Amino acid sequence: MAKEVIYTQKVEFGDCDPARIVWFPNFFRWVDAASRHFFVECGVPHWSETEKTLGVIGTPLVDTRAKFIKTATYGDVLQIHTAIAEWRGKSFVQRYRVMKDGELIMECEEVRIFAGAREGGGIRALPIPQEIRRLCE
Amino acid sequence: MAKEVIYTQKVEFGDCDPARIVWFPNFFRWVDAASRHFFVECGVPHWSETEKTLGVIGTPLVDTRAKFIKTATYGDVLQIHTAIAEWRGKSFVQRYRVMKDGELIMECEEVRIFAGAREGGGIRALPIPQEIRRLCE
Amino acid sequence: MAKEVIYTQKVEFGDCDPARIVWFPNFFRWVDAASRHFFVECGVPHWSETEKTLGVIGTPLVDTRAKFIKTATYGDVLQIHTAIAEWRGKSFVQRYRVMKDGELIMECEEVRIFAGAREGGGIRALPIPQEIRRLCE
Amino acid sequence: MAKEVIYTQKVEFGDCDPARIVWFPNFFRWVDAASRHFFVECGVPHWSETEKTLGVIGTPLVDTRAKFIKTATYGDVLQIHTAIAEWRGKSFVQRYRVMKDGELIMECEEVRIFAGAREGGGIRALPIPQEIRRLCE
Repeated sequence: MAKEVIYTQKVEFGDCDPARIVWFPNFFRWVDAASRHFFVECGVPHWSETEKTLGVIGTPLVDTRAKFIKTATYGDVLQIHTAIAEWRGKSFVQRYRVMKDGELIMECEEVRIFAGAREGGGIRALPIPQEIRRLCE
Repeated sequence: MAKEVIYTQKVEFGDCDPARIVWFPNFFRWVDAASRHFFVECGVPHWSETEKTLGVIGTPLVDTRAKFIKTATYGDVLQIHTAIAEWRGKSFVQRYRVMKDGELIMECEEVRIFAGAREGGGIRALPIPQEIRRLCE
Repeated sequence: MAKEVIYTQKVEFGDCDPARIVWFPNFFRWVDAASRHFFVECGVPHWSETEKTLGVIGTPLVDTRAKFIKTATYGDVLQIHTAIAEWRGKSFVQRYRVMKDGELIMECEEVRIFAGAREGGGIRALPIPQEIRRLCE
Repeated sequence: MAKEVIYTQKVEFGDCDPARIVWFPNFFRWVDAASRHFFVECGVPHWSETEKTLGVIGTPLVDTRAKFIKTATYGDVLQIHTAIAEWRGKSFVQRYRVMKDGELIMECEEVRIFAGAREGGGIRALPIPQEIRRLCE
């Protein structure tokens, strides 16, 4: 069984659009926060630390797919259940289930990498740091 | 051949994160703008108009998948090539190719609906309005 | 003494810019959330409720001034102390002190109105609803 | 007479809130883009360049005041007129007038600094680089 971490997110007025529901890019903002929160809860240091020790500056996305099942609006409180579903050589699969009042309203599966800075700007994929993987399993 | 519309987006400082590249939820903000821009360019009226004539308040997402191929940073200018790949009974598939200097850096495929307001809050899927479909083909 | 309500905000990776500090427009996103949260904590119903009972659809800004004293970065937790400093005929002054580890890092003072929808789009200022004012004093 | 640069900004669906008008923090996103655009148009290199040559990583805010005069909604196109109103020893005042269809809808005046990275994280104010000032006058 993979570790699961729950991230709580309040929905605010400004997160909603003229149709009065969450504007969908905001779900990705929250999923990204849930992703980092997962590592923090597993004991992985702040990226500004890992940059010095492992060269890791963050975990950017390679690929994502998401399903929007029900809407949410301001005043709602969401729980984002997060786990790592698969470890690969230079990437990993992170999964999210966004719940509102016990119901699944959005789900998302991403492929991410551990990124290092590349000479001259941009980023490159690093091999999965084993000390990070051990903390997250 | 489906109609294709190009939306131009400048990348700004605040669109980038501490890794100095576009923070990925911003790509979804821009893809959503390109989606609406597609309808505008095809001659579909503003949603505040279609709300009165057709009950359509917008085109929310049901499903999305996206691939992040190369990064972008502030100062870059992106072209988002947008088309409708498929029309279904109560939904449609919209496709985006985000280009930088002639290179594909992100692609995205979404299932969207034409939404009407539902009594008591929230939204519901409407059958594809044929007058809108005719403008977009 | 005016009522004071505290809103807690975590700073996330995507809230920060290439200088690795909070990109300042995000402070206004949080201040806006703190504003609404203030009313919720005082017992004012959701704007979708007040729209039906009082015609109030929200509390948009007329005027703001803010001072940025210290920076914050992801991993920080902020407390936003919020109060209403003054009630006027058709507007009110809302004050915010954003604290990090007990230190003031940003302060903001806004003039806001209670807005109703205007025929044909846009908004208009309503007289301060006395039932709302009573809850907030 | 100070140099003036105009930045054009389209308002999108997702920039608007449930009251169907621009959610105000978005004005600050655009003002920030107009600020950087001003320097770019004056011939100042990209901050990633000035970081190497002058140690300047950006121009964060110290202080801002803004007035919201009229609303805007999606489909609107805004022109942001930008100029530097005053140069001080370690800061400068930047002014913005946001126009819609020839009418002033928002104005903003900011104090900003030229920031360098500080040892151990955070930023510090640098003396105004004279080569930048000359380009902008």
